[in-house]
Amino acid sequence: MLKKFKFMKESLLSSLFCIGIFMLQAQELTWRNPLTEKVIQGRSKEVLESDGFARLPLALKESVREPVWNLGNQSAGVYIDFKTAAEEITVKYQVKGALNMPHMPSTGVSGLDLYAKDPQDNSWKWAHGGYSFKDTITYTFKNLGSHPSYEYRLYLPMYNKVEWMEIGTSSAEPISFLKSEGKPIVVYGTSIAQGACATRPGLGWTNILGRNFEQEVINLAFSGNGRLEQPILDLINKVDASVYILDCIPNLGLTKDRDAAKLKALIEHAVEFLRKDHPTTPIIMAEHSSSEVPGILNGKPNDNFKESSRIGRETIDGLKKKGVKNLYWLSSEDIGLDIDNTVDYAHPNDIGMEKIAKAYKELLRKVLR
Amino acid sequence: MLKKFKFMKESLLSSLFCIGIFMLQAQELTWRNPLTEKVIQGRSKEVLESDGFARLPLALKESVREPVWNLGNQSAGVYIDFKTAAEEITVKYQVKGALNMPHMPSTGVSGLDLYAKDPQDNSWKWAHGGYSFKDTITYTFKNLGSHPSYEYRLYLPMYNKVEWMEIGTSSAEPISFLKSEGKPIVVYGTSIAQGACATRPGLGWTNILGRNFEQEVINLAFSGNGRLEQPILDLINKVDASVYILDCIPNLGLTKDRDAAKLKALIEHAVEFLRKDHPTTPIIMAEHSSSEVPGILNGKPNDNFKESSRIGRETIDGLKKKGVKNLYWLSSEDIGLDIDNTVDYAHPNDIGMEKIAKAYKELLRKVLR
Repeated sequence: MLKKFKFMKESLLSSLFCIGIFMLQAQELTWRNPLTEKVIQGRSKEVLESDGFARLPLALKESVREPVWNLGNQSAGVYIDFKTAAEEITVKYQVKGALNMPHMPSTGVSGLDLYAKDPQDNSWKWAHGGYSFKDTITYTFKNLGSHPSYEYRLYLPMYNKVEWMEIGTSSAEPISFLKSEGKPIVVYGTSIAQGACATRPGLGWTNILGRNFEQEVINLAFSGNGRLEQPILDLINKVDASVYILDCIPNLGLTKDRDAAKLKALIEHAVEFLRKDHPTTPIIMAEHSSSEVPGILNGKPNDNFKESSRIGRETIDGLKKKGVKNLYWLSSEDIGLDIDNTVDYAHPNDIGMEKIAKAYKELLRKVLR
Repeated sequence: MLKKFKFMKESLLSSLFCIGIFMLQAQELTWRNPLTEKVIQGRSKEVLESDGFARLPLALKESVREPVWNLGNQSAGVYIDFKTAAEEITVKYQVKGALNMPHMPSTGVSGLDLYAKDPQDNSWKWAHGGYSFKDTITYTFKNLGSHPSYEYRLYLPMYNKVEWMEIGTSSAEPISFLKSEGKPIVVYGTSIAQGACATRPGLGWTNILGRNFEQEVINLAFSGNGRLEQPILDLINKVDASVYILDCIPNLGLTKDRDAAKLKALIEHAVEFLRKDHPTTPIIMAEHSSSEVPGILNGKPNDNFKESSRIGRETIDGLKKKGVKNLYWLSSEDIGLDIDNTVDYAHPNDIGMEKIAKAYKELLRKVLR
């Protein structure tokens, strides 16, 4: 009896010890730094580990204007793909700039977004995370279930510079990172393509597009500064892209210093420059998504958007007539925004983002076939 | 010659004087206080001028819980209708609370929104405003064109308390305020119905709904606190409504203190209480819009939403079987949210808001005929 009791006691202690170890292990997270793992996607291969989570390489610092450089440090369109069987994923990071803008919440400006593709049917799932916007920002994605075959995609903030980031899962369920193959879709654009004003990164139109195609999407969009400038054209020219999307019209309104002739020359140069090294790669130029929105009362900005869009369209038509092949125009009618699809007329809300992504998707299905 | 010169000089001076007066007049704004004009809409007639821009009357302060009182001071769903020929409208106001939330921008939490109905074809137009979120917030709606027949609708902030507000137009083009007639649509709800997380007030689902029907919509939704409580039931019972919408399920999850039987009793009481004074007025109860969203990875909160939604549905079915007429259930399948329609799973983004409004619209078209 005494022996039996002793055995039970030992057995109980041993069980408690095992449970304790198990709980300790479950709580203990292994942290991975995606930067040192060299698994950052959604940016040019010219950008190095030493450039952090930026979209522009240090080599470009002297040749781009200061606002372009600063915006290039923001992680718009940057993402990380990985597999894990973990049921909980924690991400901690710090950002440099303001957490939000008056028309865009912290979740969009400085937040993360986690999707996962089920490779069985290529369907996308989504996980909501609990967030804490303190000095160090934390997102915790809980109760995910264990899906070792799923390909997780973690989107980084669209309008902030990430200083450092670590991704934690339980030590028992580590992460294995993935890298896309194939030719990327390259987008050179403005605030809209950078992601304003999606409420979270996964809803920016370039990121939606990325979930619709197997290719990586490289976001080179700079709020207020997408102006078809040479240093950025040089950078995208180095990418062996499946398609070049030049969505810069919203930042190319007519001004005292940029009349119709100059705008035309700028567009012609961009297309002809890319054509030299990429004779057959499709190039898409897009109208301002808010060029023609029925039911907008305010007159003047409308007229300016319309005018530069008209010149863009005519220039592309002219280039086509001159024999430039695989050149496409995406019109605002193709996008079809209405009065409830922007937050401030210029910047689409999540409805507008979805419509822009859909219009591009339909065009790309033809262009990339 | 001298005389002619003198005449020209006088004529020039006189012209300059006239131009000066004209410009002065154009710049000079007449400010109107919608509160003292008694033209606040979207709230119960029990709420008085002395209650400011709130949705709850002072008389209720002692009988509601403190968070309900505080949220009732926020101007969700409150709006002002007016006519003016002015081409520019300026609104200045102060708010009491934080300008934004991590998942909802200042434009939604503390901003304004301006729509206008063209009575010729009942189509709605929208005007974007330049905003400045300083100590005093200013919205300026410019270049509107002159539309004296249009019925403007100015929506107030959805998640902030407005301390005071003035609406300015040029003195030459004053404002005449309008008041809706007919029985209002009354909504008793939670954070979602209060407007989280629309990017601007006009995109909250109750406000979208208001543009689809001729009736006023009264928003009695309280973030985290829409719990079918007696003081609010008393308040809505005093409104001779065209329909009562009880969209409280998202705040009625099962807890230690609220089991299935208590939830059932709460719903039965709310319906039977309103039925006493309003024997035929339609009553709609709605499922949590995120009860059934395919593709959400996280398990647990989903299950809780599902469970209280199931009990709600069964209780409504039971009441119908007991003979309660004009009682309706709006299911999450009717709403049809997908993984891209919320900012944080619980709170719809602008896409989700549009879908909720559409589902209600379709149901109300049948119910209100």
